[in-house]
Amino acid sequence: MSHNTFGHLFRVTTWGESHGIALGCVVDGCPPGISFTEAEIQSYLDKRKPGQSKYTTQRREPDQVRVLSGVMLQEDGVTLVSTGTPISMMIENTDQRSKDYGDIARQYRPGHADYTYDVKYGIRDYRGGGRSSARETAARVAAGAIARKVVPGLVVRGALVKMGVHSIDHSRWDWAEIDNNPFFTPDAGSVDTFANYLDGIRKAGSSIGAVIEVIAENVPAGLGAPIYAKLDQDIASYLMSINAVKGVEIGDGFHAATLTGEENADEMRMGNDGNPIFLSNHAGGILGGISSGAPIVARFAVKPTSSILTPRQSIDADGKQVDIMTKGRHDPCVGIRAVPIGEAMVACAIADHYLRHRGQTGRI
Amino acid sequence: MSHNTFGHLFRVTTWGESHGIALGCVVDGCPPGISFTEAEIQSYLDKRKPGQSKYTTQRREPDQVRVLSGVMLQEDGVTLVSTGTPISMMIENTDQRSKDYGDIARQYRPGHADYTYDVKYGIRDYRGGGRSSARETAARVAAGAIARKVVPGLVVRGALVKMGVHSIDHSRWDWAEIDNNPFFTPDAGSVDTFANYLDGIRKAGSSIGAVIEVIAENVPAGLGAPIYAKLDQDIASYLMSINAVKGVEIGDGFHAATLTGEENADEMRMGNDGNPIFLSNHAGGILGGISSGAPIVARFAVKPTSSILTPRQSIDADGKQVDIMTKGRHDPCVGIRAVPIGEAMVACAIADHYLRHRGQTGRI
Amino acid sequence: MSHNTFGHLFRVTTWGESHGIALGCVVDGCPPGISFTEAEIQSYLDKRKPGQSKYTTQRREPDQVRVLSGVMLQEDGVTLVSTGTPISMMIENTDQRSKDYGDIARQYRPGHADYTYDVKYGIRDYRGGGRSSARETAARVAAGAIARKVVPGLVVRGALVKMGVHSIDHSRWDWAEIDNNPFFTPDAGSVDTFANYLDGIRKAGSSIGAVIEVIAENVPAGLGAPIYAKLDQDIASYLMSINAVKGVEIGDGFHAATLTGEENADEMRMGNDGNPIFLSNHAGGILGGISSGAPIVARFAVKPTSSILTPRQSIDADGKQVDIMTKGRHDPCVGIRAVPIGEAMVACAIADHYLRHRGQTGRI
Amino acid sequence: MSHNTFGHLFRVTTWGESHGIALGCVVDGCPPGISFTEAEIQSYLDKRKPGQSKYTTQRREPDQVRVLSGVMLQEDGVTLVSTGTPISMMIENTDQRSKDYGDIARQYRPGHADYTYDVKYGIRDYRGGGRSSARETAARVAAGAIARKVVPGLVVRGALVKMGVHSIDHSRWDWAEIDNNPFFTPDAGSVDTFANYLDGIRKAGSSIGAVIEVIAENVPAGLGAPIYAKLDQDIASYLMSINAVKGVEIGDGFHAATLTGEENADEMRMGNDGNPIFLSNHAGGILGGISSGAPIVARFAVKPTSSILTPRQSIDADGKQVDIMTKGRHDPCVGIRAVPIGEAMVACAIADHYLRHRGQTGRI
Repeated sequence: MSHNTFGHLFRVTTWGESHGIALGCVVDGCPPGISFTEAEIQSYLDKRKPGQSKYTTQRREPDQVRVLSGVMLQEDGVTLVSTGTPISMMIENTDQRSKDYGDIARQYRPGHADYTYDVKYGIRDYRGGGRSSARETAARVAAGAIARKVVPGLVVRGALVKMGVHSIDHSRWDWAEIDNNPFFTPDAGSVDTFANYLDGIRKAGSSIGAVIEVIAENVPAGLGAPIYAKLDQDIASYLMSINAVKGVEIGDGFHAATLTGEENADEMRMGNDGNPIFLSNHAGGILGGISSGAPIVARFAVKPTSSILTPRQSIDADGKQVDIMTKGRHDPCVGIRAVPIGEAMVACAIADHYLRHRGQTGRI
Repeated sequence: MSHNTFGHLFRVTTWGESHGIALGCVVDGCPPGISFTEAEIQSYLDKRKPGQSKYTTQRREPDQVRVLSGVMLQEDGVTLVSTGTPISMMIENTDQRSKDYGDIARQYRPGHADYTYDVKYGIRDYRGGGRSSARETAARVAAGAIARKVVPGLVVRGALVKMGVHSIDHSRWDWAEIDNNPFFTPDAGSVDTFANYLDGIRKAGSSIGAVIEVIAENVPAGLGAPIYAKLDQDIASYLMSINAVKGVEIGDGFHAATLTGEENADEMRMGNDGNPIFLSNHAGGILGGISSGAPIVARFAVKPTSSILTPRQSIDADGKQVDIMTKGRHDPCVGIRAVPIGEAMVACAIADHYLRHRGQTGRI
Repeated sequence: MSHNTFGHLFRVTTWGESHGIALGCVVDGCPPGISFTEAEIQSYLDKRKPGQSKYTTQRREPDQVRVLSGVMLQEDGVTLVSTGTPISMMIENTDQRSKDYGDIARQYRPGHADYTYDVKYGIRDYRGGGRSSARETAARVAAGAIARKVVPGLVVRGALVKMGVHSIDHSRWDWAEIDNNPFFTPDAGSVDTFANYLDGIRKAGSSIGAVIEVIAENVPAGLGAPIYAKLDQDIASYLMSINAVKGVEIGDGFHAATLTGEENADEMRMGNDGNPIFLSNHAGGILGGISSGAPIVARFAVKPTSSILTPRQSIDADGKQVDIMTKGRHDPCVGIRAVPIGEAMVACAIADHYLRHRGQTGRI
Repeated sequence: MSHNTFGHLFRVTTWGESHGIALGCVVDGCPPGISFTEAEIQSYLDKRKPGQSKYTTQRREPDQVRVLSGVMLQEDGVTLVSTGTPISMMIENTDQRSKDYGDIARQYRPGHADYTYDVKYGIRDYRGGGRSSARETAARVAAGAIARKVVPGLVVRGALVKMGVHSIDHSRWDWAEIDNNPFFTPDAGSVDTFANYLDGIRKAGSSIGAVIEVIAENVPAGLGAPIYAKLDQDIASYLMSINAVKGVEIGDGFHAATLTGEENADEMRMGNDGNPIFLSNHAGGILGGISSGAPIVARFAVKPTSSILTPRQSIDADGKQVDIMTKGRHDPCVGIRAVPIGEAMVACAIADHYLRHRGQTGRI
């Protein structure tokens, strides 16, 4: 995996900083003949867009995507069909004024990448976090919208399942609830809890972490590889590449460490339709790195943003000790907007392995 | 990342099955002038080797490594110096007899990769799990022994921190204890608990999961990249590629989801030696995908092996329903032997990023 | 090498078709701290731009490049400094009207990629050749402008050395002449010959091939690798990826097949400055895949464009036999505009190996 | 493309030096279910093997290949069937004694990679050329034997078409003659000319260059890609990676530079079987980087070996000026043994693109 590219046959390269002219991606390897519209891509971007509720940053980012290449516009004036050549997508930054960053341009905010960037590059784009800004994830979401189309029937959906110390009740899981609340929780009973909890966090100028679960259905069995291109490995890699993610699990994940072999093994039977079925899904749809046909289940943990109103001790580029308080409009729980990003990354990983499997074995 | 290769500048390709003639790896990209001995590599392999105690499988695998290329033997007759060309290492399988596998050759063991292999390849190497056997990890451990030498001063050590429901007490952590017990636990107080617990598991013909923690010290600040070559991302990817791993964490990992921004941010001060120091390490040594100079902390969860004596329901390749009991000599807790494997993978990821950072920025 | 990306540490991804909204590239892996201006990039694009003389196509393509990311604008308002993050560059297509392509949309022009595209993708972008249009090379030239800056002191220059049956006289080589004529020939004595010859070709509605020579000076010794990342191999690969190129040579190239070992070996002596010198350069600056410090010499052959006024026999997508005459504004000798493209590709290959060598060995 | 690996889905990693314990390769990405025998692989290795006639080096290298992994032995005890996992092949070096290299260990032989290796790595394997020895190509030939099987019906054959100043007569081309002479020439009328010519070269302790032509038949149309994964580009890259190769051509190659558009365009008609046919093959079977279904024609130029008996001026590692004469058993025309190597490389490139095309488009 290269530095700003991911994927082997379905390859996505993203570019752009928080305060540059634009950001975007090049999707290279999309098969020919895939139909989609800019409006479809936009619908996923809108889920990620800030300012949708008081629980996300109040910055205004229209995030309007344009498809610049790799497609032929159909006669309906709306439908785009991929030609097999690279699909370039761009989102212009409407508000790219460089405000006066003053001292902060030389200070290292605790928990941010300021210090490590400076050590690595010797030059730091202090404007809004530069390349490490979550703005970059808009490009991934656009790529994910294409990836969803590559695998026939694929459905990839995500949900917030934990915020700070509060978890949802999995037994009340209802996908229909996801879009009825500003948290992407599938548990209607958790909405008030999350709302009250996050109101407190927000008013205190603090922030909180979260856990997101992504489930992919209709993934054909056989995707992945036994060793260094395991499907779960690439899903883990893709999810861990999202800003602020500190942990990734497949299926039972860390809980599997507490299970016995009897508890953990997913027994098999023949289904009524003549296809094998699994009686449980501790494995999260992946066995030996290869999809089993059961739903793929991945979870990832997002840390709280370090942009908080409480001053923290740090240093600046000259080694001077300073106290830093990060003013500005920030998400009290960045995990919320990570839901559509996680979906996009899982979709991209599956699309890539779908094409690889087809190439390597001809068995799709 | 290719199917059986990992790394971008420090690239490792492994090959070999459980019951083949041999297994091995090619380490491509090791810088010239790195000194090591076969005995050093062997010392890491011996940690991973089965049959070291009653808690690991009783199979005999001498696992004797030979270095076949990429080095010049020095006049002492022992020291090898890398020439910059690919280092090929091989471990012969001393016991490669194909016993009579009978029915099992066509049955899908629950929790194993049998079914997914058959779906993917249409041909399955039923002999000891084929390529998905943990035998493959011996090659990784050999590669890791080279990787450790690439980064000056690098120290990578792992420990078992949880077995089933029992966790170690982190406050009693003592690296010196690691080699004093068959569990690689750094907490002397946990040895009896683990021993009694695993005796019970073993006698019941059952198995249990575990969590391993790997800590890398003396990692220069600046390794990694902001987006798709984050150091934590590659560590996650490498660890998730180990057999039976279902979850990976960096620093506080999933626990970070429960923290506030104030709790999670690692404050900075200037150390007495004029270098920055972090007052805590929630981030696990990586900020924005780039190493900070603090110790890198990674954890991974290993599921219990599915090779258990209790019969489980499954099907065979003809779709016939069968009950399967996996006889044979298996590890009751495969997590134990995963410790040196996890160390090797973390070392390889760091070595790769060390070379990439040097190439990309010239700043080491 | 991926489908629309080249390079390992200095990676270029290009996108865009002849008649799309725009085209561009993402340069990923440019080290931080490299200074350049949009005007510098533009100066190389202008060399490649059509309509510069009557000997190149009369299409109007302003080819105005914009740098969208990966840089910080300095206080002079002109200088850009790379930050180490991906540099995205875009050139808008000012004339993207889709004229009525009529029959040609379904006909396979002999010598063009029409038929092979249709076989491969089942969908063909008939507008101006789609992705196989030479328009794409503008993006490469922009990337090459950055590559030139990556290697300190690097000078990469190209010249047209043969057009059809007429070759230049190497003994009259004068770099200063290159920009004094519309053919990029370094031999002032060849200008009239080329002019008269090409006038005849052009008036006949015909076309002719050419050979271009690219010379790179101040390339540090040590770049490349012995086997599958030979510097000459990558230069050959990069040059062969240019539209219409059918052959590539390094140093004496095909002529070396006629030489004896005595004639071909470049003898070495110590120079007055204490550095080794080569008494000849049959090898073209590369020995065993690694640069020797002598100038790198590469040549490539460009076939005549198939867009000619004489009707040729062919078939259409229905298998019907047709006669095709390609009207429109085409280059009688596409090799002329290939000169800056060849320079750019050689510069990119050298920049990539410069970074790889630094990473792999730390010896720059 | 990595340093010692080539290919994207059909990936080959080679390892081993001239005087090491062994050399070999790992073929990663071979589809499952491909049948072959060790004897088949050996038959290609035997073509490349030295000592077959007085025209090749008199060194003895049994070059016996062993397949170590990635296959299941069938009941006939001979047939191997690929399982989809990496195929490791090894050839032991039977004569690996390190003779006394004396002064030569520090001298730079003109035309060899001695100097560039030393500059690059700071450590040089002076034993027989180390990694730059043509020994390495045995591993490629083994990989090529597998590649041939991946594409149904594929036939790849090579021939020597020029030696020094003597070319074959293409009108007398007869594949049946290839194995009837020690030069792999398809023109029976050229055998005596080549024999007399090379006898003179050999007796003078000199060496001479050559040109090899490789033709691949039954290549499906549609393999390759428009831009940076052109099939011709990868063939050029693979061929240029062979030791001593200085030029590569596809179809008419450099001759195309002298042609007009009318002469160069390959007209199309419908064949009697309802498939398109090309009335000529100037393009060498590749249009716009994509195979057309016509035979693929590639040529490459091999320089004369620099190991000659006439002393040449050079320097040593201390900068001292020396005269060097390379004693030993060398090939007077290394181009002869390059024939099976060229075939192998073309087969590998086609196999890789066959799998890529299948993955990317599903159209095979």
